Amino acid sequence: MNGPCYITRRAEISAGHRLFHPELSDEDNERIFRNCTWPGGHGHNYRLEVTVVGDPDPTTGMVINLKDLRRVMDERVVAKCDHRNLNEDVDFLRGIVTTTENLCRAFWQELEPAIADLPGDARLWRIRIRETRDNSVEYYGPAGARPE
Amino acid sequence: MNGPCYITRRAEISAGHRLFHPELSDEDNERIFRNCTWPGGHGHNYRLEVTVVGDPDPTTGMVINLKDLRRVMDERVVAKCDHRNLNEDVDFLRGIVTTTENLCRAFWQELEPAIADLPGDARLWRIRIRETRDNSVEYYGPAGARPE
Amino acid sequence: MNGPCYITRRAEISAGHRLFHPELSDEDNERIFRNCTWPGGHGHNYRLEVTVVGDPDPTTGMVINLKDLRRVMDERVVAKCDHRNLNEDVDFLRGIVTTTENLCRAFWQELEPAIADLPGDARLWRIRIRETRDNSVEYYGPAGARPE
Amino acid sequence: MNGPCYITRRAEISAGHRLFHPELSDEDNERIFRNCTWPGGHGHNYRLEVTVVGDPDPTTGMVINLKDLRRVMDERVVAKCDHRNLNEDVDFLRGIVTTTENLCRAFWQELEPAIADLPGDARLWRIRIRETRDNSVEYYGPAGARPE
Amino acid sequence: MNGPCYITRRAEISAGHRLFHPELSDEDNERIFRNCTWPGGHGHNYRLEVTVVGDPDPTTGMVINLKDLRRVMDERVVAKCDHRNLNEDVDFLRGIVTTTENLCRAFWQELEPAIADLPGDARLWRIRIRETRDNSVEYYGPAGARPE
Amino acid sequence: MNGPCYITRRAEISAGHRLFHPELSDEDNERIFRNCTWPGGHGHNYRLEVTVVGDPDPTTGMVINLKDLRRVMDERVVAKCDHRNLNEDVDFLRGIVTTTENLCRAFWQELEPAIADLPGDARLWRIRIRETRDNSVEYYGPAGARPE
Repeated sequence: MNGPCYITRRAEISAGHRLFHPELSDEDNERIFRNCTWPGGHGHNYRLEVTVVGDPDPTTGMVINLKDLRRVMDERVVAKCDHRNLNEDVDFLRGIVTTTENLCRAFWQELEPAIADLPGDARLWRIRIRETRDNSVEYYGPAGARPE
Repeated sequence: MNGPCYITRRAEISAGHRLFHPELSDEDNERIFRNCTWPGGHGHNYRLEVTVVGDPDPTTGMVINLKDLRRVMDERVVAKCDHRNLNEDVDFLRGIVTTTENLCRAFWQELEPAIADLPGDARLWRIRIRETRDNSVEYYGPAGARPE
Repeated sequence: MNGPCYITRRAEISAGHRLFHPELSDEDNERIFRNCTWPGGHGHNYRLEVTVVGDPDPTTGMVINLKDLRRVMDERVVAKCDHRNLNEDVDFLRGIVTTTENLCRAFWQELEPAIADLPGDARLWRIRIRETRDNSVEYYGPAGARPE
Repeated sequence: MNGPCYITRRAEISAGHRLFHPELSDEDNERIFRNCTWPGGHGHNYRLEVTVVGDPDPTTGMVINLKDLRRVMDERVVAKCDHRNLNEDVDFLRGIVTTTENLCRAFWQELEPAIADLPGDARLWRIRIRETRDNSVEYYGPAGARPE
Repeated sequence: MNGPCYITRRAEISAGHRLFHPELSDEDNERIFRNCTWPGGHGHNYRLEVTVVGDPDPTTGMVINLKDLRRVMDERVVAKCDHRNLNEDVDFLRGIVTTTENLCRAFWQELEPAIADLPGDARLWRIRIRETRDNSVEYYGPAGARPE
Repeated sequence: MNGPCYITRRAEISAGHRLFHPELSDEDNERIFRNCTWPGGHGHNYRLEVTVVGDPDPTTGMVINLKDLRRVMDERVVAKCDHRNLNEDVDFLRGIVTTTENLCRAFWQELEPAIADLPGDARLWRIRIRETRDNSVEYYGPAGARPE
């Protein structure tokens, strides 16, 4: 049987953040971001799900070695963000409003080339982040099929 | 980075219902809907997931303000269905067999125009309803890509 | 090693109900039970957890055969309540306000003697019912240790 | 049937924090609290579960009105902690190392008298807080039965 | 309203397995499959999700009768795999390295024709298997849209 | 405020096993253990929850350092059982029927002295193992309060 498989690996990141745009007034930050902009900041247990796609290797039956994917996720994202303040401590998030949308895009940028460099032809397909139990975001990359 | 983001908001609705078609005989209702048609009715904690899609605003980093999405979901669906009998109490479900498929379609009809009216260019992408822990349905709208 | 083990078996019951006391006025029913008393009724996916306690049999290493426990739960509770209206369709709930507290007590009464009759010396220890994702009740029986 | 029932209500709190004791050296803070003391702080979606115990009212079948319990939890804990920095923004946590153990105890102190003041004889039985998906703490009050 | 609906049914399979390719040396098996190839084997509670797609019947409002789908899943997959050793006990898995990717493909092959034979025009759309709480795989069939 | 806190740490173990007693006939093994005794064996993602109890240290606010608890769990149980066959590969399970009851007791024996040796006065309070999504067992030690 043929056809690609989609492999998802999950991780949890406990991080602090605050939604805030430096060029907006305090009133506008409050109007737009409401309780998410309160100055002391807050935080989440972000649930990160990284999905790669590819054809399984005919011998091993694996699209990617999950331990490689886990290592890439750890090195590129989890180790830099877990137990950190996303607004202050993470190089690749500097100057970015830390909405879940922007986190998806930034994590994509960190992970996409590293996954492409792994052995085999798997490539990044989707980033999904659950911010709270009721809110989550998915991103399929800059060339992700734009629904009509 | 470009490319759209998909934002999902979840809610829980505790409602009663019964599968029943008035033009079918009792025997046919029982044959088709089995225990779901028993006359006393039953109920579920429906888990509703509403997904919208759009490009994040370059300044705010948000596709949609989640508090707006929550308000629309509350006004259009949750307040009308939660702690209600779906067969008897909900105007927009009158005359509809309350299968999860039909609930998805009816909720789409309620939510789609209200979401289109929100500020920004987000639009409704998917309705997902989990009826029991083992059964769920997804719907992508009347123009949803029909798989070949 | 000695000491008892506590065995828990879980089941899901999709049922309809309505909180209502026939000797109260409509106003009082509404004041006390609020949206739970609305006349059309509503429903839940109740998650039932039944816990028994006993010493594992030295040969089999089992307190109870889980298939026996499952059968008792099915016969005494699940088959009578699932896809039913708890206010109207269940003999052993007649005349009872169907709060989760009362469901725990009524399920205890149905299950306790049947579990005591099973081979071995296991006995019912706890009934836990999750009504919604945020509300649940536990009951340890009429002789359950009353905390000081 | 008699015997008390235990009612649990759940809530989620997204908050920032950092483990840090001002009288310890930076080295000792780091040695003891490791990544939890990193200066930028981090955060969690704390899952709070509050359990009360009492005898159901013979007429209503309820130990407590869940809407009352929810209101007390909102006023005393959730509104003060959600989207806040637990180290800086919460009056009743001033001077406390914000471990989950200490949060349980502090929440107990806030909730216990307010629950005792509600109609009926329900009283607080347990505070449980899940900090991450793998770590949680329970507390049964200052007079909670100390296991031998 | 028109447009197809996607119906998902979930099941749990407790099975043993071991990743091992007979034509590879022990060293290569260990290098590729690491702890998953340890000779005693291990096991999982696989969570299987089967999704079918189709237009709801205008009268019944159902794409497929979920009890039919459940029966097909039980007969073709669950009864053959649950409480079995996937490497040794399952006819349709003979000679296959039991990665989750290959399980998805093999389950597709078992389920696709049986679902096509059911009344109505529903057809298999996706197989998803969660192997552990952090790892899962999805498969859309041999003709599944290959992302660009 | 005083009173002990109960700290729970969770881990997942993917292992193979088979219920089988060597001194019973094949017929008796099948009669007692049913599908759990099938010769090829099967497996589970066991969810292990280890609970310790103690008074929080007045300075640190911690009953135990969770990284110490995690290390003890890894060394004594997880590293020996994960991706292993519980009937064949685990020294401390030799000769034991691998029911969840017996696993709880055996894990207690491995963990109790190691936890008692950790700094502070925390001690093991409970072992809970979830074998499947519907079955779980709790054990409170050989001196665990035997309910009347």
